[in-house]
Amino acid sequence: MIQLPFPLILASQSPRRRQLLSQIGLDFSVLPADIDEDVVSLALPPQEYVRELSQRKALYIREEIGGAKAIILGADTIVVIDGRILNKPTDPEHAFTMLKQLSNRMHEVFTGITIVESHTGKIKSEVQRTEVYFRELQDEEIRQYIASGSPMDKAGAYGIQEDYGAVFVSKINGCYYNVVGLPLEKLYGMLK
Amino acid sequence: MIQLPFPLILASQSPRRRQLLSQIGLDFSVLPADIDEDVVSLALPPQEYVRELSQRKALYIREEIGGAKAIILGADTIVVIDGRILNKPTDPEHAFTMLKQLSNRMHEVFTGITIVESHTGKIKSEVQRTEVYFRELQDEEIRQYIASGSPMDKAGAYGIQEDYGAVFVSKINGCYYNVVGLPLEKLYGMLK
Repeated sequence: MIQLPFPLILASQSPRRRQLLSQIGLDFSVLPADIDEDVVSLALPPQEYVRELSQRKALYIREEIGGAKAIILGADTIVVIDGRILNKPTDPEHAFTMLKQLSNRMHEVFTGITIVESHTGKIKSEVQRTEVYFRELQDEEIRQYIASGSPMDKAGAYGIQEDYGAVFVSKINGCYYNVVGLPLEKLYGMLK
Repeated sequence: MIQLPFPLILASQSPRRRQLLSQIGLDFSVLPADIDEDVVSLALPPQEYVRELSQRKALYIREEIGGAKAIILGADTIVVIDGRILNKPTDPEHAFTMLKQLSNRMHEVFTGITIVESHTGKIKSEVQRTEVYFRELQDEEIRQYIASGSPMDKAGAYGIQEDYGAVFVSKINGCYYNVVGLPLEKLYGMLK
């Protein structure tokens, strides 16, 4: 579908992002960027927060690989509700609080993506926003979902593509794949 | 996640529907309903068209299995644009015409779902609607997608969960899984 002039490197260890890149037929390797997310202030506007983190991830890998020719993709996804950024939960109790907060409400999901051409330093960043509506969740459902262990590595403590995630979400407004972790249609346009 | 009092039967041979039912952890068997879709008029309003077809599929299987205790799920999905129903394309040229028509536009996807409790005849039908926005498609992309063979068994000649489908769709408004073929959140509520 899409031919890139240089090898593609995904600067993320998210299994969802790997799966999405494969889905659109791209060959790539994975080099997770080991950056400290706390250095970026949660007080930033969400668009700037995810843009900044996606850039840092991509540029970290650019340093790592030296002058090798490659296209590096960095991405960061967050959930925003009541003007506050929800990142990954720190423990099961934190996940419970997050999911209770999302219950019966609309929230926003932002993903920042950055593409860097490593040997030239050419860089491009974009941000995608999707509105997600949760139906009312029962405490028992939330507890069962947390017991599955799945919420712990996900921003906002849920995965829309999973068993529970799929039946929590009544509707979305925007790009679905943005909520999974990579806005495929936008990424495709950027890579073209 | 959900415990049903009787075995669930999916009255559809769609591999997407099977995959979605598995995704939310349901056990089920598959008995495709062999009904003639042409007996339902394409001139019906879309909501009535999919409701009618989902009911016919579920009731056909109810006949088939006699008095056996079961919960039967029938479903039908269509694409609507310019007030016309797009069903599965009849040949590659038809698929090309459909995808050209969807390019750079919004269209609607309707799925009707019917649940029948076979031994009591208790029946429930619902319809879900989602708006889908396509970016502008290049003829070459459309031809490559049709060459993959994938559009031929799909209403509107595309699958949103596939390689090309994913990069054609810029955004949706409503339930994502409705576009794949089963509105999971609504189905979950009906089964509960």
